[in-house]
Amino acid sequence: MKSYQEMSQEELMQERASLEQQYKEYCGKGLKLDMSRGKPSSEQLDLSMPMMDVLNSDTHLNSRLGTDLRNYGMVDGIDEAKELIASMIDTKPENVIVYGNASLNIMYDCISRSMVFGVMGGTPWSKLEKVKFLCPVPGYDRHFAITEAFGIEMINVPMTSEGPDMDMVEKLVSKDDAIKGIWCVPKYSNPQGISYSDETVRRFANLKPAAKDFRIYWDNAYCVHHLFEDKQDELLDIISECEKAGNPDMVYEFCSTSKVTFSGAGISGLATSLKNKEAIIKRLSVQTIGFDKINQLRHVKFLKNKAGVENHMMKHAALIRPKFEMILKKFEEELKGLGVGNWVVPNGGYFITYEANEGCAKSIIAKAKEAGVVMTGAGAPYPYKNDPKDSVIRIAPTLPPMEELIAATEIFIICVKLASIEKLLKA
Amino acid sequence: MKSYQEMSQEELMQERASLEQQYKEYCGKGLKLDMSRGKPSSEQLDLSMPMMDVLNSDTHLNSRLGTDLRNYGMVDGIDEAKELIASMIDTKPENVIVYGNASLNIMYDCISRSMVFGVMGGTPWSKLEKVKFLCPVPGYDRHFAITEAFGIEMINVPMTSEGPDMDMVEKLVSKDDAIKGIWCVPKYSNPQGISYSDETVRRFANLKPAAKDFRIYWDNAYCVHHLFEDKQDELLDIISECEKAGNPDMVYEFCSTSKVTFSGAGISGLATSLKNKEAIIKRLSVQTIGFDKINQLRHVKFLKNKAGVENHMMKHAALIRPKFEMILKKFEEELKGLGVGNWVVPNGGYFITYEANEGCAKSIIAKAKEAGVVMTGAGAPYPYKNDPKDSVIRIAPTLPPMEELIAATEIFIICVKLASIEKLLKA
Repeated sequence: MKSYQEMSQEELMQERASLEQQYKEYCGKGLKLDMSRGKPSSEQLDLSMPMMDVLNSDTHLNSRLGTDLRNYGMVDGIDEAKELIASMIDTKPENVIVYGNASLNIMYDCISRSMVFGVMGGTPWSKLEKVKFLCPVPGYDRHFAITEAFGIEMINVPMTSEGPDMDMVEKLVSKDDAIKGIWCVPKYSNPQGISYSDETVRRFANLKPAAKDFRIYWDNAYCVHHLFEDKQDELLDIISECEKAGNPDMVYEFCSTSKVTFSGAGISGLATSLKNKEAIIKRLSVQTIGFDKINQLRHVKFLKNKAGVENHMMKHAALIRPKFEMILKKFEEELKGLGVGNWVVPNGGYFITYEANEGCAKSIIAKAKEAGVVMTGAGAPYPYKNDPKDSVIRIAPTLPPMEELIAATEIFIICVKLASIEKLLKA
Repeated sequence: MKSYQEMSQEELMQERASLEQQYKEYCGKGLKLDMSRGKPSSEQLDLSMPMMDVLNSDTHLNSRLGTDLRNYGMVDGIDEAKELIASMIDTKPENVIVYGNASLNIMYDCISRSMVFGVMGGTPWSKLEKVKFLCPVPGYDRHFAITEAFGIEMINVPMTSEGPDMDMVEKLVSKDDAIKGIWCVPKYSNPQGISYSDETVRRFANLKPAAKDFRIYWDNAYCVHHLFEDKQDELLDIISECEKAGNPDMVYEFCSTSKVTFSGAGISGLATSLKNKEAIIKRLSVQTIGFDKINQLRHVKFLKNKAGVENHMMKHAALIRPKFEMILKKFEEELKGLGVGNWVVPNGGYFITYEANEGCAKSIIAKAKEAGVVMTGAGAPYPYKNDPKDSVIRIAPTLPPMEELIAATEIFIICVKLASIEKLLKA
């Protein structure tokens, strides 16, 4: 197959004409398709419907220590739920605080608390001239939205196939004490589906930050979100690596069941050193009397333990794997060798990242939108929504039913081709 | 009956000797009784156990608009829950944001957001030299803990039988633009059980604060928490009164089902003007993807509507009214006329406030503790835990079983008498 780069102007114009024909046909269909958000489908949510039966009016709503879970208290959550969360991220229950339904809210609170109160006795960030965060890119738009809201300057760090560029991370954090954190999605990263290598994790644990209140914001959102039973990425436990490296307090790890049970009604957790935990609970005790312990018990009764979670996640995988495979197969068949971009084949997570030719992402997404396919906005995986190469597109395959996803993928492929040709013809 | 003030020194010493004898007997019993926190009893929590059955694995977990409540989204909550919360505080559903399980957390967030981002375009409070809050006293310790944590200076405003001293409130807010808020529990106040009169509410609505970003923090925690079917306090709706007065944005109202259903697993709401709501949601959308909508639906299905809530609250009243009545009867029989203090007889809420003679509260609470009765700490109802008269004691009758409460009350009465005599003998 000839790549577009190898085609003559005439051949390109012919190809464009044929693509425009196909594009118009799709546009005429009045489709409304959505590949924009990393939401589970209703079939995936159905997998957790039995959770609605594990507690009922006959259940003793006590913790195993006898505490009445219906009443106030237990600000750091019930022991059973700490164990469940800990098992998902391979850490110890005593390091965990169990929160409400959204780990994003925990992250927001961590930043907000640091702004107002500082980190473990450090100067409140709001009193500092400048606060900066490192942002491996492409990354998760909602992370960047939090740091942007607080006026924190974000610095792009390129992702490699092993995680963030650690040479750059090490150099930056060691010399600039305004750098207070780094956003990481270390396993099946959002959006690329890359898992950090052991070396990357160890280099993180051994960082020598200039700022004492530097923390790694380790959002282990996809810790158990494998696509395959036999091809699963492994991630080193950052908390014990930090301990070994003599940096026990350097990491906040986040986890939730949002994409395990119900996205809107799961439980979430923060895992960190005992010293960090103590400092956090001191503040948290003023903020709330406690999170929903009944929902914590509901999750424990339903998921039970690590094996229960793994078993449940394989049911998710069975539902979403075909969607990933369909898209990747079509890319392989339709786009490979054309010189129109690259993609990463992930072993887990919620996304496929398409790296279009430079300067094409916005155009592809705009075209798709006109044909009725909503994609994540161009630039979304970058701080300030600014993708310097206008290249990265996040594809979220999980939510739409298969037939819709097939149509959306076909339209997307046409848009990629069209935008790439237009770019070449303009050059 | 002779009051202690009318007794001779000898009579007082005789009375003391007899009380000390009774006190010693109680001390020897090794009791462990708790009248400290406003928690519902397990019998009260049992009233809501049928709520555990209203949703199960056969339920369509959709909102009436068809949204899948299991998935992400709907940051301001489901319409049905907005209606439920609105009905409890007599406001309009469109003014409501439904949150998670704790209204305290909403209040904390309101203060935190104002510190970092300011109120509707105003200067962030963290950038100001000084921020002050008015605190009607006695009041709720957890309110004061929030403002104290943020370094906000708290100014005591005395409570009257109609609410806070409004002459003082009007004067202070009109001349000092550092005063950014006032904590109010307007109905069955914590701890006195006082409900603000119509005039008080109207004077609040007509405040002319020097600070544009002044807000009334209207914690309507006991909006439906009547003790009687036939003696119920009525509270004017502050939101519509503020509208009428041309101050539509001046109030944040808070509400929850914590003491309606489950204290740890209820739902909560913020009601405010549409302009405030818009400003809050702008920030909230960065903070979270949404609160637990399944629990919102669970509450709607269980409580249904205003009549459902009222009916349910009468069951609570039937359980806690005898506890209040027992204590008040014993006070009447044992303490009235002795010159050892006063108390307010509330029509609702969660507390009885005992106003001991000046300089006696700490001593009473310490004595009670030694005899095995835990009371709310002396000073707790005051900012900085500083009760200038060392007089106010908050009694929480709801949690202990009746027989324990009887013993605790008897011990408390002995401690009141003893402390009062000791004070007189020292004078």
